[in-house]
Order: sequence, then structure tokens, then C-alpha cells
Amino acid sequence: MPIQYEVLGPPGRDNALYVTVDTGQAIHRLLFDCGDGVLSKIHISDVQLIEGLFFSHFHFDHIAGFDFFFRLNACREGGPVRIFGPDETRAIIHHRLQGVTWNLVSELEGEFQVTCLNENRLTTTGYEIRDGFRRERQLGSEAFDGVIYRTDAFEVAACPLPHGTVSLGYVVREYPRQNVNLAAVKELGLRPGPWLQAVKDSSRADAERIETELGLRPLGELRQQLLATHPGDSIAYLTDFWLDSPETEARLLDFVQGCRVLVCENNYADAEQELARKNFHMTSSEVGRLAAQVRPEELIVMHVSDRYLPDALLEQLEEVRRFFPPATFPAAWMEQFGA
Amino acid sequence: MPIQYEVLGPPGRDNALYVTVDTGQAIHRLLFDCGDGVLSKIHISDVQLIEGLFFSHFHFDHIAGFDFFFRLNACREGGPVRIFGPDETRAIIHHRLQGVTWNLVSELEGEFQVTCLNENRLTTTGYEIRDGFRRERQLGSEAFDGVIYRTDAFEVAACPLPHGTVSLGYVVREYPRQNVNLAAVKELGLRPGPWLQAVKDSSRADAERIETELGLRPLGELRQQLLATHPGDSIAYLTDFWLDSPETEARLLDFVQGCRVLVCENNYADAEQELARKNFHMTSSEVGRLAAQVRPEELIVMHVSDRYLPDALLEQLEEVRRFFPPATFPAAWMEQFGA
Repeated sequence: MPIQYEVLGPPGRDNALYVTVDTGQAIHRLLFDCGDGVLSKIHISDVQLIEGLFFSHFHFDHIAGFDFFFRLNACREGGPVRIFGPDETRAIIHHRLQGVTWNLVSELEGEFQVTCLNENRLTTTGYEIRDGFRRERQLGSEAFDGVIYRTDAFEVAACPLPHGTVSLGYVVREYPRQNVNLAAVKELGLRPGPWLQAVKDSSRADAERIETELGLRPLGELRQQLLATHPGDSIAYLTDFWLDSPETEARLLDFVQGCRVLVCENNYADAEQELARKNFHMTSSEVGRLAAQVRPEELIVMHVSDRYLPDALLEQLEEVRRFFPPATFPAAWMEQFGA
Repeated sequence: MPIQYEVLGPPGRDNALYVTVDTGQAIHRLLFDCGDGVLSKIHISDVQLIEGLFFSHFHFDHIAGFDFFFRLNACREGGPVRIFGPDETRAIIHHRLQGVTWNLVSELEGEFQVTCLNENRLTTTGYEIRDGFRRERQLGSEAFDGVIYRTDAFEVAACPLPHGTVSLGYVVREYPRQNVNLAAVKELGLRPGPWLQAVKDSSRADAERIETELGLRPLGELRQQLLATHPGDSIAYLTDFWLDSPETEARLLDFVQGCRVLVCENNYADAEQELARKNFHMTSSEVGRLAAQVRPEELIVMHVSDRYLPDALLEQLEEVRRFFPPATFPAAWMEQFGA
């Protein structure tokens, strides 16, 4: 699939999600949260190419690995390091950028661009290494339409969720792709060839005619006959939240609708419902019931409490599976548990 | 010995120094610098008892492990977490304390006290978890007499050194101890017993007389005859500096005079003298010549460049040994090198 993912960190410790989107032209690397040690198994050269770091929120288990990321990216050349998150992202990242002595940097490149979601607006601020990341530059502000980051191949949508503080859920969604239906080409009595490039090239107008084995035909007509639209690949990352109302649940279901992969926290087994409420986390049955409504191809359960031993964790997974049988822990954990 | 130490971190990676001072009554734990991963082999319960964290300076390799320390100590009860360092310590630590979202903390204990050495004054500022470490409280300011931290059994002295920025060198020095010379007791024809407590108890005046087997004697006289003064144990930690002038060298020699253990950086082999100058670090021969003047019992060389392989590092050590033969790397490194 074009979207590959890896849940980072072991069970009971800080977790994060590493996503790559392979567009055929390029590989985009995205990181969701940055707890302690989560990047230890990602190759340094990949860490230095992470295109966006998306924070759900800034409790310690989601930010404690930031220095590792920062150190490898402080002097990134050729483009900014992009960071996204809820309202407090600007202040917290600015503190962190200033938590190191930067001398002898006036000649260095390296810019961080921090985009915060606040009050239905996205606000982006820039910081440069050349002044030790001190000065803030306002880079723009726009109305939030659900999407926090856009490229020409995919977008990242964000959804504020309740967790005592705001925690952002994220969905990475490829745009629908138009592929040539080779069976339809054959059916029309045509042979594939370079002329199909013109059919796929969206910069050329529907009204334009091109030469085919059947004579001159308008691109619009050929497109209708020969192109099939495939929904893009997609993955949702939901951590540190609970469903405080039917409205929140409806909003979240709408947000993750149609996702192929759902990566979801499950901090507490059902027996600890009370703690889950107190700490604004999801119980296993709640995760299972949520997934049963979303019906993703894959449900990966992560961000579990460190108070549970492997046997108890596998029981917890069974509680999720009662509502959504395909549920599983990340592959590396299952291997570790011998499950 | 009362002072035990461990150089933390592997060769070519972030290093730090962990020191324990065993006074007989208590064990004091001190940490010098806090780079990435340096605490990974210290037991968590010990990290939570570290009495003082002393920073040389705040380049990334000396602070990148702070989140690990901070997370384990943010809610410390029963006394403040003490942090020491050069002038920018206050600003940098305050940024770091605010690099996390702290909610639900208003009932928690937990205070950080940051002491900075600036312009020959020590200034201490306090931060509490209950307001998310936001508010600064001025806790006092005093003239700097060379000592940055004092207990009733030892002191930590600091010395500003040149490194492009200021880098503080540190010496931990037990106070001289007065022990009873049992041979002298015997020589006087006396038998050891509880009366010796009075001789050792410095809260009792020299003029006071106590009953001995030889009759009433003034404590002052007994003290002169029976007590021997031992110099306290001591260790110096010198990292990220160079000797930019004979004055600096003289000042440093005075600072570390009489130290039993000298832990010293050696970022560059002699062949890279030019890089050493550019980056304000010590070459091997410079370290060796410095140690030859200090003549410590032990010289531990650390903070070496990650560009050197084990064989080259052992050659670098030989360059130090040419001037000071007892020089060695930390025990764990020597084991790793099979040396």
C-alpha cells in the first residue's frame, strides 16, 4: 500500500506513529508524537527527512524524545522542519528550541515552522537557528477547514479531542487516484501506449482532442471511458482521548470515516473504567465499539498502561476483539508476547 | 574511598559524571552534565535522589538527556531539585521546565532551585510544579567565593573556563576529616573508650576538661595529641575547555590543586590541533601536560570525538600517557576496547 506505518516504542512505554506515504514520485515521512526513545529504531537519515512532526498534545510521554529529533534537525538545509499541534504548540516548541545554547550559528541554515490549531484557525510561526531560534516570525494565519497540512498527493486532517487538555487526532489521507483501466482500453479495441499519458495528465483540458487508433477523440470522453477512480490510502492516529459525549463520538466517527488503518490508544482494560474516566483515556470495550462503527481494515491498539503484564495485555486485547475481532497490537509487540 | 564516581556514556557519545559522596551518615548523589542517554545505567531510584545537577554549559551534548532527569524528578517531594551552572542556566532551565504541558498539578509538590554563576555572584531562582513552573521566585543572591554548593561534609567549587561560551569546571571536595590516631592513644597509656567522642565533638570547647585515665585533661590538649587531620577526598570534572592563556592555566591549576581524581575531556588527538583550537577543546598532549602539573592519583580521560575508532582512541590515550603515564579511559571503555 502507498501508506506504510510503524507504531514506535514498546508496550507500556512511550509510543508514537511513523508513517511513510509513497507517491511513486517521492516518499513522505511523517511522525506523530515524539516520546522518549521512540526514534531509536528509525535510521538517522530518515529522521533527518521527516517532513512533518504532528503532536497530539504535550504531556511528557508525547514530547520527551523531542531533543533527539531536534538535535538531528536543528541545522536542516533545503527546507523548514514543520511541526503541528494544538494551541500551546507555539509556546512549548519555542521554549524547547531555546533550551540549548546556540553559539557560532549566525551562518547556519535551519528553520522551524510551527503550525498551531487554535479557535478554528491555523497559525504558523517561524524560528531560525541563525539567531538561536529566539525571534518569532508570523508566517500566516488561515481559517481551519479540517486539514492541517496539504501536499499534492495527500493531506493530514486534525480533530480536537477531549483529554483534560486538548489532544489532536490525525488522519493521513491520500487524494483519490485516477488509474487507467486497462480492461476498458482493450474493450474499446485500443492498445496501451504513450497516448495514455495525455489521458492521465490533469493539466490538459477535457475539450482537447488527441489522436488515437480510433481517430481524434476529446480527452474528456476518453477519461470517462478509461480512467477509474481509486480512493486514496488512509490511516488514523487517535491517542489520549475519551468520548465525553455522543457529540464527540459523532464528530470523531465522521473524522475517521473510511480509514483503512486505525491506530488507537487503549490505556486501560475494562476493569479500570474508573481510572480511565479520571485520566481521560479509552477502555478496551470503548475502543472495540468505536472500531466496530468505523470498520477499518486494520485496528492497531497501542499506548497501553505500563502496569499490565503481557498476559493481562493479551486479555485486554480480547476485550477489544469482542467488539472488533481484527484488532491487534503492533506486530513487534505480538512477536514479543509470542502471540 | 568516600568519593565514588562513574563516567557515564560510551566513547564518542555524550558523557557525564556521576559522583557519590559517602559521609558515613548519608550518601550524596551528584550529576555533572546530562547528555542524551547518560542516565540509562543509573537506577531510577538513584536518579530520583540526585541532590545536585551541575552543568558545565548547554551545548546539546550536555543537556539532551534533561527530559529523562526532569520526568523522574518533576514531582520530587521532601526537598528541592537543585541545578547549578553558568549564567544562562536560569533562562535555559526555565525554558525546559516549560517545555511540557502541566495540567492537574495544582496539588502537587515539586520545586526546582536553579543557581547561576554570573559576574562573580551566585543567584538562585525557584520554580514550582504547582503553577507549571511558570513563575520565577528570587531565592537569593550572594557573592561567589569559589564554592557553588556546600553541605556539612563536602563542597562543590566551580571555575569558569573558556569554550567559546563559558564552561564551568567543578571540584567536589570533602572537608578535611579529624580522625583519632589510635597509636597516639596507646602511646599516652590510654585505652580507647566513649571519652574519645568528646575529643572528636567539635561543638565542645578546647578549654573544657574531661576525665581520663590520666586524670582531668583539657580537650584542646587531648586533641593536639590524639587527632590526626586527613585531607578530604576530591574529584575534578573538567570538560569542554581549552587553555587560552597562561593566566587561564594558572587559575585552573590552582583550582584543581590536590585533587585525588581528575576527570578531563580530550576531544582531539594531537594531529587535530587545528580543529581543537577552532572548537575550543583540549588535545591529548595538552591534557597530559595539565595532569603532569596536577599529579592526581587518577586521570580519567573522556569526551572524545566520535570520529575516532577504538585503535585511534588508544593511540590518543598514549599521547596523554607520554606526559602522564597513569592516564586511562573510564573502566567500561577500557573493557570495551579489550585494553
